[in-house]
Amino acid sequence: MPSTSSDDLTVLDAWWRAANYLSVGQIYLLDNPLLREPLAAEHVKPRLLGHWGTTPGLNLLYAHMNRVIKARDLNALYVTGPGHGGPGLVANAYLEGTYSEVYSGIGEDADGLRALFRQFSFPGGVPSHVAPETPGSIHEGGELGYALVHAYGAVFDNPDLLALCVVGDGEAETGPLAASWHSNKFLDPRRDGVVLPVLHLNGYKIANPTVLARIPEAELAALMRGYGYAPRFVTAGSDTDHSAVHEELAARLDAALDEIAAIKADPPVGRPAWPMIVLRTPKGWTGPREVDGKPVEGTFRAHQVPLAGTRTDERHRAQLEEWMRSYRPEELFDEHGRLVDEIRALAPRGERRMSANPHTNGGVVLRDLAMPDFRSFAVPVDKPAVEMSEATRVLGEFLREVVRRNPDRFRLFGPDEVASNRLQAVFDVTDRAWNAAVEPGDEHLAPGGRVMEILSEHLCQGWLEGYLLTGRHGLFTSYEAFIHIVDSMLNQHAKWLKTTRAIPWRPPIASLNYLLSSHVWRQDHNGFSHQDPGFLDHVVNKKAEITRVYLPPDTNTLLSVADHCLRSRHYVNVIVAGKQPQLTYLSTDEAIAHCTRGLGIWEWASTPVADGADDPDVVLACCGDIPTLETLAAAALLREHLPELRVRVINIVDLMRLQPDREHPHGLSDREFDALFTVDKPVIFAFHGYPWLIHRLTYSRNGHHNLHVRGYKEEGTTTTPFDMVMLNDLDRFHLVMDVIDRVPTLGSRAATLRQDMADRRLAARAYTREHGEDDPEIADWRWE
Amino acid sequence: MPSTSSDDLTVLDAWWRAANYLSVGQIYLLDNPLLREPLAAEHVKPRLLGHWGTTPGLNLLYAHMNRVIKARDLNALYVTGPGHGGPGLVANAYLEGTYSEVYSGIGEDADGLRALFRQFSFPGGVPSHVAPETPGSIHEGGELGYALVHAYGAVFDNPDLLALCVVGDGEAETGPLAASWHSNKFLDPRRDGVVLPVLHLNGYKIANPTVLARIPEAELAALMRGYGYAPRFVTAGSDTDHSAVHEELAARLDAALDEIAAIKADPPVGRPAWPMIVLRTPKGWTGPREVDGKPVEGTFRAHQVPLAGTRTDERHRAQLEEWMRSYRPEELFDEHGRLVDEIRALAPRGERRMSANPHTNGGVVLRDLAMPDFRSFAVPVDKPAVEMSEATRVLGEFLREVVRRNPDRFRLFGPDEVASNRLQAVFDVTDRAWNAAVEPGDEHLAPGGRVMEILSEHLCQGWLEGYLLTGRHGLFTSYEAFIHIVDSMLNQHAKWLKTTRAIPWRPPIASLNYLLSSHVWRQDHNGFSHQDPGFLDHVVNKKAEITRVYLPPDTNTLLSVADHCLRSRHYVNVIVAGKQPQLTYLSTDEAIAHCTRGLGIWEWASTPVADGADDPDVVLACCGDIPTLETLAAAALLREHLPELRVRVINIVDLMRLQPDREHPHGLSDREFDALFTVDKPVIFAFHGYPWLIHRLTYSRNGHHNLHVRGYKEEGTTTTPFDMVMLNDLDRFHLVMDVIDRVPTLGSRAATLRQDMADRRLAARAYTREHGEDDPEIADWRWE
Repeated sequence: MPSTSSDDLTVLDAWWRAANYLSVGQIYLLDNPLLREPLAAEHVKPRLLGHWGTTPGLNLLYAHMNRVIKARDLNALYVTGPGHGGPGLVANAYLEGTYSEVYSGIGEDADGLRALFRQFSFPGGVPSHVAPETPGSIHEGGELGYALVHAYGAVFDNPDLLALCVVGDGEAETGPLAASWHSNKFLDPRRDGVVLPVLHLNGYKIANPTVLARIPEAELAALMRGYGYAPRFVTAGSDTDHSAVHEELAARLDAALDEIAAIKADPPVGRPAWPMIVLRTPKGWTGPREVDGKPVEGTFRAHQVPLAGTRTDERHRAQLEEWMRSYRPEELFDEHGRLVDEIRALAPRGERRMSANPHTNGGVVLRDLAMPDFRSFAVPVDKPAVEMSEATRVLGEFLREVVRRNPDRFRLFGPDEVASNRLQAVFDVTDRAWNAAVEPGDEHLAPGGRVMEILSEHLCQGWLEGYLLTGRHGLFTSYEAFIHIVDSMLNQHAKWLKTTRAIPWRPPIASLNYLLSSHVWRQDHNGFSHQDPGFLDHVVNKKAEITRVYLPPDTNTLLSVADHCLRSRHYVNVIVAGKQPQLTYLSTDEAIAHCTRGLGIWEWASTPVADGADDPDVVLACCGDIPTLETLAAAALLREHLPELRVRVINIVDLMRLQPDREHPHGLSDREFDALFTVDKPVIFAFHGYPWLIHRLTYSRNGHHNLHVRGYKEEGTTTTPFDMVMLNDLDRFHLVMDVIDRVPTLGSRAATLRQDMADRRLAARAYTREHGEDDPEIADWRWE
Repeated sequence: MPSTSSDDLTVLDAWWRAANYLSVGQIYLLDNPLLREPLAAEHVKPRLLGHWGTTPGLNLLYAHMNRVIKARDLNALYVTGPGHGGPGLVANAYLEGTYSEVYSGIGEDADGLRALFRQFSFPGGVPSHVAPETPGSIHEGGELGYALVHAYGAVFDNPDLLALCVVGDGEAETGPLAASWHSNKFLDPRRDGVVLPVLHLNGYKIANPTVLARIPEAELAALMRGYGYAPRFVTAGSDTDHSAVHEELAARLDAALDEIAAIKADPPVGRPAWPMIVLRTPKGWTGPREVDGKPVEGTFRAHQVPLAGTRTDERHRAQLEEWMRSYRPEELFDEHGRLVDEIRALAPRGERRMSANPHTNGGVVLRDLAMPDFRSFAVPVDKPAVEMSEATRVLGEFLREVVRRNPDRFRLFGPDEVASNRLQAVFDVTDRAWNAAVEPGDEHLAPGGRVMEILSEHLCQGWLEGYLLTGRHGLFTSYEAFIHIVDSMLNQHAKWLKTTRAIPWRPPIASLNYLLSSHVWRQDHNGFSHQDPGFLDHVVNKKAEITRVYLPPDTNTLLSVADHCLRSRHYVNVIVAGKQPQLTYLSTDEAIAHCTRGLGIWEWASTPVADGADDPDVVLACCGDIPTLETLAAAALLREHLPELRVRVINIVDLMRLQPDREHPHGLSDREFDALFTVDKPVIFAFHGYPWLIHRLTYSRNGHHNLHVRGYKEEGTTTTPFDMVMLNDLDRFHLVMDVIDRVPTLGSRAATLRQDMADRRLAARAYTREHGEDDPEIADWRWE
């Protein structure tokens, strides 16, 4: 057990003062960074933007971590839950030298300090929060709630890594954070690293006290023990002598790390009670105690900028100067404005610096997946639309091989649905990660499992994000409707990816891959609450260079798409594919060709070229497995009953092909689009999701006014598959009626057919109502 | 303390058997409901859909609740976290007679039983989950995670109400549920009712054990104590004699209710440790122990339908018959198929029945808000676009009066942002609800406060939903970006509202009102992570009869819109309005007229009629406060520099006016739309949100191809307000450039002006980069 001398703590305190000084400077100063002259109005920023309140606590922990990293040669990273304490993390990265290494314009001298201060929350500068721009960060913390789950994601399969995770007591009130503590039941002490959570109770949010700071300490200790941790408490008052709290925190941190080392050296049978620390400090600690007669330090008023009038109010400015000088900058920086060597010595070297730990820059440590040849898993398709196959079950066999070949860099994530989504072949080679009790009859549970299942989409998403951001690969399978639970998390990740594209020192990471099975059209067991295809709408609002959406219609196209997504980098890929038995259409080679093009004419289902396919009367477009089935059945009906009608069938796998190429990199040019969809013929478009998404993607196309889209229009219940499509007018009969309504020149035979279609809808509904299942003639339809 | 006789428990057990029998019958049977003949294939449904696993535990609790409701004359409702145990809740409502009262086709006889069984999960019947169709429900439970927060919402301001809340151990893994336990810090024992949570550990999800069932009982007890509850444990084995578990549960329930009664009779100083119960039962209890040689009862295999082959497999069918007969239906139902009187006597009477409690049918108990006259809070506007006002601050004064006049039926909800959003006037008359420790310097915290603030959008939303569903009113204020956190909860609530419109016995409830302040354009402190206007896109995907979206441009329009929304029924109303000082445009009367129309020409900003306003060269449309400001500034520039250009300025408050009237009840007819926007003139549309939302709403309009929309295109950081609009090409200068690019006949002066605009953009950016704030000439712009 390394001991802590008072000399160590003196240097540590100096580091802390330096970090606090730099934090305040970033919030306030344009110039005079070392206070070598009296502070004048023009030295102060006109707009004061940032959050002081949480920052001194973050800086304290950073300084203490540096001590133990050096003493123990730890491989550690720092996850900043209170991400709006951005100036603190920037300050520490600067003190460690990392900042100047990645941003050559911010040197380690007075000019560099001036630039560092000025850029913060300044137009053209850096954001106020911990962000991708911050070296050492894998976590923005803007939205709050995901610090702990990101930290766990980072340490999975990184057995030597320690993630210090600061959880703010505001953030701790969120649902995702409250559930994240249970991540310890999914951690394998042998295979994975360790998260050391520090619950930072500074007592206040923007305007309110926090819940966890205002329950009795015994209750909080019970809560943490109930979550499976061994809590240690450190409490700081507002004394100006900080040596006691330094000693206390150092002792608790050492004890926690000793315990971690003991667990790692000899993991117990069963789940250990991992240590965690509760750190109670005043909000805005070391800042102004009072401003304009009101208490600030230790209150919610310290949340953002404690002194608001420093540009115009001399007293505020004097108070700011006094505050900054209280850190004794003259002891911290030499005549050139460089951190003095004695303090600098606290920083670990090279990649041991938390701001330079390569795990925090996933693209640097990313290794390709070892991929099997997906073609070897393909199902034979001699004739289209005759044989049945369960697409996700076959995908499971492919994924089994991906899991087998990548035992250290690939995991599957899902809310208890990997088997339900028919991917269970993966359990031939791995288990579900599980480090809680196991009972007779349990299947496929083990601490080292590579399938992460918990009934929390938030945790699945957060673990995967942490895993990806530290340079690994994964796939998230979920019910389509409930993936909306992570809409906001997706936003934050997509923003991270978008921002990172412009940061040259952060190479791309693996894509965030979703497989949405159990989709809107097949909620036989669940009904209306489980029906929502709107995640696609949400995703396509994100930057076009980030988002990709695929709707493979059958097994081999799903294999091709999944292979592509797993190999890709820095995207959000959404794949929607049903898990039920369905018709197969394309052989392997056809599937690859179709997916490569992203969309195309299915000639076998269209009027032959000899009969005028190059000049169709109507285009039937389809996107998604169920719409494809209904469209093909409609095409068959048209071929049978209106053989003179020239029909073109187009299937779309890659949704973003519909957008113009000026809007999305996958977009078709207008010329290509016109050639496929025509500029003057009706297009009956059967879509998996909300119909208006197709309009939103195609509104500027030449033929848009001829586009008639069917999709989910928010009608549903617990009913049969065909009743579901009928409820939303997406069924084959209605599609035929749509064609007849839109093609002007059809004669009386078409009118008869239209009536026949309407009658068959009624008959189908009556059959379902009577028998409780779909008419087999409809359910068993095949292309003849 | 009422005592329990063994006779009581015999009847209770019979009720439980009856409920279980009816539950199994619903899942399996088409006919032969009383098993008066041997079970044949044609008696069994062809598609077996539903969830058995959780159902016997739900039924057990329901039976026990009935005993104590009668013994203590409790006013209680039942919140079913595991909502997929739908057959159980339907069964109990049927046994209580409520079902037949609201559904006259389902009588209390053999025919009624047959109909009850047949309709379940059957085309044209009822959904498999607890749903709006289920009497006594305020909670669907399809998505999982919101049971406890709904229960708390229901008991706020209902001091005599007890909500029994069954939390499934799957659901308990979700983030929202994990945070919901802390709701007890926001409950006032005097003013509010009580939630009695029952954590139902049946041990398994679909395919996995649950976390809370697999941690040591001491850990679970610590967790519950840490959450502030006093847990009591009841454990059932798989013995066929159930008398022991009945006795144990009855004793625990009595003890819990005694404790609740004691707290209610004499509330302690500070927060009491409310009782809760942990009920451990086998999953699929009393169902088949083994099927095809594999254990089922007590395993994950009992989750859905334990016997899958009952239509075709004789052995399965025999096992089903044996299972159903094990409940001894001949003892439960008389010769007519009616529940025997002795068992029926367990049911409470009338509105004491949980299935008939009026609080579960909010529209029945809903009382109008006592509303102040919003006009008396209006700000004077003599000339448009000259004076400044903070719209939400003024709204706060109006809300203060709403709070004052409705001390029992209106609350504000928000994640720590009521003051940040400038609504602090409400604290003149109320406090924040808070029943944890209070310290010196705290402001406006009290157990009875009517402002509900916790840093969890999930909890705010869930509390409000529970409050609305039980017949009260409320407003949720949030950051615009982070309201995406509740996207999926909104889905579920909107589905509830949509379904309820078709249920005659459920009258409309008060609308779910959102105020999104701190919006995308003014994230000065926070930057990119806080910028996302896509909630609007999400909301408009829901049914048109449910959703309303308002973007009032100034203070008086915000007042008018808020007044309208608070009075409305059964909608989801989204209001977006900034909290920063901004120009005022409309006097009270003008604001009312404008909001009533929903959109309109602003003649004062348009070319005068005398100069050809009825035949504009270009339409400048705007929607949202910041786009309105930029549009007006652009109109002023055009008036100054191109006075011959005929400009029409249209402001839109009610977004859904843009949709065709055939799509949305607020939609303009094509004729109205054409008259306003023209069919052939360029429309430069400045929009608050993602620009394509406007295209999605207007794609079928005649003039759509002339529509050019500017909005948020996912560009942002921590910067100045004007820099933000420039980053997204929404600024006044760019709008002028857009006009020049789109109006074909402008001459060389326009080309000069275009260059000037481009130069002014560069100059504005340079100014901001140098000074860290916007050029005052831009920031202080007024209409002259």
